[in-house]
Amino acid sequence: MVGGDGDYSYAKNSSFQRMIIDAAKEMISESIFDKLDLKSLGFEDTCGTFKLADLGCSVGPNTFIAVQNIIEAVQTKYRADHQDYHQDSSSGLEFQVFFNDRHGNDFNTLFQTLPPSRKYFAFGVPGSFHGRLFPKSSLHFVHSSSSLNWLSKIPKEILDSRSPAWNKGSIICSGLVKGVSEAYSGHSAQFKNDTEAFLNARAHELVPGGLIVFVLFSLPNGVPMIDSNGGKLYGFLGSCLIDIATKGLIDEEKVDSFNIPVYFPTSEELKAIIERNGCFSIERMDKLPDPPLMRLKPSPESVASQIRAVFEGVVKEHFGYDLVDKIFTKFAENFIFDELIKEHNNVNLFVLLKRVIN
Amino acid sequence: MVGGDGDYSYAKNSSFQRMIIDAAKEMISESIFDKLDLKSLGFEDTCGTFKLADLGCSVGPNTFIAVQNIIEAVQTKYRADHQDYHQDSSSGLEFQVFFNDRHGNDFNTLFQTLPPSRKYFAFGVPGSFHGRLFPKSSLHFVHSSSSLNWLSKIPKEILDSRSPAWNKGSIICSGLVKGVSEAYSGHSAQFKNDTEAFLNARAHELVPGGLIVFVLFSLPNGVPMIDSNGGKLYGFLGSCLIDIATKGLIDEEKVDSFNIPVYFPTSEELKAIIERNGCFSIERMDKLPDPPLMRLKPSPESVASQIRAVFEGVVKEHFGYDLVDKIFTKFAENFIFDELIKEHNNVNLFVLLKRVIN
Repeated sequence: MVGGDGDYSYAKNSSFQRMIIDAAKEMISESIFDKLDLKSLGFEDTCGTFKLADLGCSVGPNTFIAVQNIIEAVQTKYRADHQDYHQDSSSGLEFQVFFNDRHGNDFNTLFQTLPPSRKYFAFGVPGSFHGRLFPKSSLHFVHSSSSLNWLSKIPKEILDSRSPAWNKGSIICSGLVKGVSEAYSGHSAQFKNDTEAFLNARAHELVPGGLIVFVLFSLPNGVPMIDSNGGKLYGFLGSCLIDIATKGLIDEEKVDSFNIPVYFPTSEELKAIIERNGCFSIERMDKLPDPPLMRLKPSPESVASQIRAVFEGVVKEHFGYDLVDKIFTKFAENFIFDELIKEHNNVNLFVLLKRVIN
Repeated sequence: MVGGDGDYSYAKNSSFQRMIIDAAKEMISESIFDKLDLKSLGFEDTCGTFKLADLGCSVGPNTFIAVQNIIEAVQTKYRADHQDYHQDSSSGLEFQVFFNDRHGNDFNTLFQTLPPSRKYFAFGVPGSFHGRLFPKSSLHFVHSSSSLNWLSKIPKEILDSRSPAWNKGSIICSGLVKGVSEAYSGHSAQFKNDTEAFLNARAHELVPGGLIVFVLFSLPNGVPMIDSNGGKLYGFLGSCLIDIATKGLIDEEKVDSFNIPVYFPTSEELKAIIERNGCFSIERMDKLPDPPLMRLKPSPESVASQIRAVFEGVVKEHFGYDLVDKIFTKFAENFIFDELIKEHNNVNLFVLLKRVIN
């Protein structure tokens, strides 16, 4: 994600991710009310520290909004559980919030934009959420929004021109599209490994009875990634790259070797990974209400800025700093909303897991 | 402190602070061995998370070295306590390390330079250590090196030309020097308030039996700040500012209103504040061995860089970016080591406190 608070920053270009957080708010509140057993977690009296983490937080404000939603839901639950106790029975409850993202995330901006009115202790946690980040049994709640689709790396075979999985001529590994199924299975295997690693790490870190809520893009059965809205956007970015390559400004080979490290699983695929892991019960797995994208119909420049805020890093790393402006300007020039975004055929999947008590 | 890893960065210009950390290493090990009662803190078997914080950490590598020293000492103590248990009895012990500094600290550099071989979970904690940073009873050990001399602010009366405490013509509030004793008592009152706030916050955050180790500059009784090595250096910086002002490049008034927010207490003064607070027992308060400054005799440029790494922020804020180079170049031009640093007449004071069990 692009750090800072400039025109192309994630902080200023993450309204789509914000819509997802807003859409999930109600489901998070319900989940906490129905499934968080505060008494069994040791919150029997008015004291204690509730520890939550937002994994893949990037920079604010989205992460601050998500965290505030969770805290309010826990307070509501706490008051409901202790209504016989005294009037403001959550007053002794303290919140410790861990904001996690990779080492390269702009934590300086994150820290400098922390809400001054926050009622929690704020911490930054640098590192990949595919590995351990926290001590054993040290968290009560984990949240992650729009982050688990990111792979920890591009599988080697996809970059190997001698491999049948070589993903030539496309920047996404789009699955179910004739000819690139091997590339998609490379991504699929990587997603499986990454998600297993994520679950194994969290299994150590969450207390028994602790919850994980995550939202990620998924595909309805039988819909190839390239036909989903997200896939179309990425495919369109790919077509802009090819456009620039045909004008001789980028080597075609450079475009061939570029892949977006993102994967959209089906809900069945995800379910199988979680069940095989065995450390969590699936308490809820539902489609999020569709964000009001069709109604808002953002301008081409706005869509280009949103895509840039997310992908500038990988684009810059691969094509070099000098081409970044050209690539995203081309994106805005060529983009026609109605042609690309016809229907909501990808799914924002809301998943609620509970750490089972072994 | 200057962030990043450039020529003027704190990371590259903190060898003096490193000497203090090295000098304190042995005393920290002894303190942990003699005064940390792991069993009473709940570390009775091979599991558990030892939680420590370095307050005012700036950026690495000094903070990483200090933290590693503490972890090794705790492991040694743990093995000694559990030698009848099994061979490597500290293997189940996990360490959670909190790196704290103000919001403006360069946490990005701190995180990107974390030692890859570290055996602890690393967290960044933005905020002033004069207030609460952690939940109740959530820390076992607090460390702070060369940070508690910094005041949270310059007291108003020192900046007020109508006040008897107005500190005209000097950038330090040097105490016991005729005519500026009011200014010094302004600093002194601020130091008292700040240290009390520090102790009150830590009293909440440390578990009973938890330890605080801090090192700070102090003055021997009867030695005015201006005669200490540190005071002389700051006073010399002040003379460079006046030099530049006489050339008309800075307004004299601008120099008059500049004060370094640093205070050197005497050990008696510090002891009185801690005793009045009442939440901590003073387990040790000793002079650190003098760092080998006289022998090393750093070059004027090196001294200027070290001073710049620490004070560039406050200098830039007050005089503006354009004058920073000029001020520290002047410092290097005018500086003569032997004239300034004649003897070790300031004291690095090592203080060990234990949270008393109320």
